[in-house]
Amino acid sequence: MKKTLNVIKVGGKIVEDKASLERLLNAFCKIKGDKMLVCGGGRTATKVSEALGIPTEMVGGRRVTDAETLKVVTMVYAGLVNKQVVASLQAKGVNAIGLTGADLDCIHSERRPVGKINYGYVGDISEVKASAFANLIELGIIPVICPITHNGKGMLLNTNADTIASAVASAMADLYDVTLTFCFEKNGVLSNPEDEDSVIPEIRKADFIRLRDEGIVSEGMLPKLENAFKAIDAGVNKIVITNADNLGKDSGTEII
Amino acid sequence: MKKTLNVIKVGGKIVEDKASLERLLNAFCKIKGDKMLVCGGGRTATKVSEALGIPTEMVGGRRVTDAETLKVVTMVYAGLVNKQVVASLQAKGVNAIGLTGADLDCIHSERRPVGKINYGYVGDISEVKASAFANLIELGIIPVICPITHNGKGMLLNTNADTIASAVASAMADLYDVTLTFCFEKNGVLSNPEDEDSVIPEIRKADFIRLRDEGIVSEGMLPKLENAFKAIDAGVNKIVITNADNLGKDSGTEII
Repeated sequence: MKKTLNVIKVGGKIVEDKASLERLLNAFCKIKGDKMLVCGGGRTATKVSEALGIPTEMVGGRRVTDAETLKVVTMVYAGLVNKQVVASLQAKGVNAIGLTGADLDCIHSERRPVGKINYGYVGDISEVKASAFANLIELGIIPVICPITHNGKGMLLNTNADTIASAVASAMADLYDVTLTFCFEKNGVLSNPEDEDSVIPEIRKADFIRLRDEGIVSEGMLPKLENAFKAIDAGVNKIVITNADNLGKDSGTEII
Repeated sequence: MKKTLNVIKVGGKIVEDKASLERLLNAFCKIKGDKMLVCGGGRTATKVSEALGIPTEMVGGRRVTDAETLKVVTMVYAGLVNKQVVASLQAKGVNAIGLTGADLDCIHSERRPVGKINYGYVGDISEVKASAFANLIELGIIPVICPITHNGKGMLLNTNADTIASAVASAMADLYDVTLTFCFEKNGVLSNPEDEDSVIPEIRKADFIRLRDEGIVSEGMLPKLENAFKAIDAGVNKIVITNADNLGKDSGTEII
């Protein structure tokens, strides 16, 4: 029987707000057994870009990443956010280590080809080295991954944190019984975005297509769900989309 | 017999200049056996501070680190510089991992007490966990350490990179036969700062006191040498101060 592994992704407003991040990290600490954290930081990157006078351009929820923006996201994701999270976890007795995809060569990506849009230094994941993470986990170390990858030729690339969480969970599913949880500021996938009580408890693939076609699910939720179904197809056991404050509780939306 | 371990510290103008950093990393890759890299980035931090409109204050070569400056050095040292170095090393086939002292809880520090000068968020090292590094090295992983430590209570602290290199080399001396090499833009400790050919080939403790009292060695070199003698006292086998372009060659100043 495989050991269980919890992969938790946190992003959105949670990372930016000290109190909500603290609550999330406390809940993360309470999760028993092997675990990993994937931590975004897009809002902080936008603020630092602003302070540096670098314009932020988003297309379909994705950041267009020119050379200067790549520096900013590397500083914010791999430095500021990741190391603050690692230091907080260490203070709570969790032996965390912060990682980009370049560290241990754990997440390889290819720069996205220029199509209708030139996303710049954005990387699409080509390989996740599950063994690199497993080696750390076997030493009792908790990986904290930030959304920076590399192409193996010395170039860092900006990669969506939801996509990283799904790809990592998928790769780890060969070795572990994986549960992937997306934590954010809403209670789950809502049938009415204005009503936090309208959580859809379960979504199957057929439901997803209907929800998408009816426009009930849109914007930021679309890539999250697409990533989730990819992970299910790749062998991830369970996927939950829930409020960061409900991590560890039986709540939110389960993807089946 | 202990295995040998090379601890290389690089800083100064080397890190800032792409071509010289590239040469240094190539030389680092050629070093046989177990090794670690400690990489500063002060000049880049000063530039980013400037771009953000945050004034830089240096006292005796040390950066006064207020809350905003701590964010900058965390972004630059742990993010921008560290991850670019890790990605470059990976491209050269070296399985590098970037670390602050918070990662794996590997370097503990205490915030420097306020004396005549309030250095702000500057940490003096209280413990280096040699086993954390040794566990990685045994897996064939090369640690790349940046000059950020933590106090174990969730606070990141700015710590001088030379001091980190000496403290890490000292702690590793319990487990390995350690050579510590400080790489910078000069050929070694010079008897005449204007003359790159005036390298002092060997400095013993008695020489150091004389050189200091005669004012031949001053400013940035003083803490470097003080750190070096501390490391010798702690059991480090050999210490060399040399030009980054001479790493791996028999050159520079040897501290005895």
